[in-house]
Amino acid sequence: MTKQTFAIIGLGRFGSSVCKTLVDGGAEVLVIDKSEAQINNYKKIATQAIIADAQDENTLKSIGIRNFDHVIVAIGEDIQASILVSLMVKELGVKHVTAKAQNKYHARVLEKLGVDKVVRPEREMGKRIGKGLLSENMLDYLNLSANIQVAEIKITKPSFANKDLAKLRFRNHYHLNVIAIKRNDDIIISPRADQKLLVNDSLLVVGKTADVDHFSQSMS
Amino acid sequence: MTKQTFAIIGLGRFGSSVCKTLVDGGAEVLVIDKSEAQINNYKKIATQAIIADAQDENTLKSIGIRNFDHVIVAIGEDIQASILVSLMVKELGVKHVTAKAQNKYHARVLEKLGVDKVVRPEREMGKRIGKGLLSENMLDYLNLSANIQVAEIKITKPSFANKDLAKLRFRNHYHLNVIAIKRNDDIIISPRADQKLLVNDSLLVVGKTADVDHFSQSMS
Ligand SMILES: Nc1ncnc2c1ncn2[C@@H]1O[C@H](COP(=O)(O)OP(=O)(O)OP(=O)(O)O)[C@@H](O)[C@H]1O
Ligand SMILES: Nc1ncnc2c1ncn2[C@@H]1O[C@H](COP(=O)(O)OP(=O)(O)OP(=O)(O)O)[C@@H](O)[C@H]1O
Ligand SMILES: [Ca+2]
Ligand SMILES: [Ca+2]
Ligand SMILES: [Ca+2]
Ligand SMILES: [Ca+2]
Repeated sequence: MTKQTFAIIGLGRFGSSVCKTLVDGGAEVLVIDKSEAQINNYKKIATQAIIADAQDENTLKSIGIRNFDHVIVAIGEDIQASILVSLMVKELGVKHVTAKAQNKYHARVLEKLGVDKVVRPEREMGKRIGKGLLSENMLDYLNLSANIQVAEIKITKPSFANKDLAKLRFRNHYHLNVIAIKRNDDIIISPRADQKLLVNDSLLVVGKTADVDHFSQSMS
Repeated sequence: MTKQTFAIIGLGRFGSSVCKTLVDGGAEVLVIDKSEAQINNYKKIATQAIIADAQDENTLKSIGIRNFDHVIVAIGEDIQASILVSLMVKELGVKHVTAKAQNKYHARVLEKLGVDKVVRPEREMGKRIGKGLLSENMLDYLNLSANIQVAEIKITKPSFANKDLAKLRFRNHYHLNVIAIKRNDDIIISPRADQKLLVNDSLLVVGKTADVDHFSQSMS
């Protein structure tokens, strides 16, 4: 396992959060921003911090951008700059490029340019928060595939209390598998059929997204 | 289960994504934005769409903001407006207020005003993407508690192929429980100890965050 190297172009909210996470994880991170003030904030955090307009191809070449394992283009409002910089880093031969997109057209252009992963942070968090609002009981989730989900669902209905999974006929009724139960600070992994549930337990379930939604809404 | 009602103030990228998710989930959603163009885009999507400056308390009163179960303040750049509107909706008696913050000081102010959930979308997605970059094998994750995580990790090491979980001494070596295996479109729930792994399987594991990180990095 060799240490991976990253270059982040643009230290807005998204880019700077990626930077901190990578540095915390022990990675080598070069940051580029045209704003001196932003670069000064990251001089002590990043491995290397450069004030430059990333639209200048010579800058990208002189810092040896092609030698980085991964480049993150985190320019937001200036869509033209985001597109131009993404084009250049792909053409200069960077293997893995992640870029932030402002809207679906921007996203499509980036994909056509060969950007490996296009992210729309505000949109993706909007979905997560919306899902959480629809069901206050669904604490968090993870998509395993287009229609299979793992979700953490809080038990708030007293009618569930002190009944075990077999008695609740959990799998038959909800078409979900309970893979773990979180109770205070304990986690009960692969609970048995005779495991009793308590109010405020949270269940880690896996199943079809529609069944997960149905179960979590039945708690509300 | 009564139908919940939501009001979203501000239809930027974040607010409009929350709107679409809530509408898709069958909720009643009122949207307010001072931009006529934005409101026109959402007239057919939202239950009700109003062009107004939400900083006007009379507007908030006349639409009966206090009758909504949940208000989402999704104003971004104009931090002053975000703060003023959040103050007013809490003072008008809205029980559940979610607000978007631009930075940590903005977040702290919102919390002091009684906002129930403060979200920093760019920052939170930056963390998620950063974590994903640190380990290309960690496809997604969900935090069960401060230090317990469920994660989906892709098996890329040929040395894992055709060995079963018992033989790999999975629990002893990695201190993780495998709660499911995703193989192409199938999900094997609660795999037995004699379950063989294949390259490109992804494992759904639960355990300490540090152990999850360690395992996923050992795949890289
Ligand atoms: N051509 C460029 N070269 C270098 N840095 C740039 C360039 N264009 C923009 N940046 C920097 O990128 C950063 C983020 O850009 P911007 O503020 O436009 O995005 P944003 O949409 O506000 O992002 P976020 O929502 O993540 O805060 C800024 O710090 C800006 O100085
Ligand atoms: N006082 C206000 N009353 C009503 N709507 C407002 C007000 N201030 C801003 N808005 C609207 O809020 C929306 C989002 O605001 P803004 O563009 O400042 O946020 P943003 O940081 O770009 O958000 P995002 O990153 O989610 O796109 C815009 O459509 C804007 O018209
Ligand atoms: Ca900005
Ligand atoms: Ca904006
Ligand atoms: Ca913005
Ligand atoms: Ca933004």
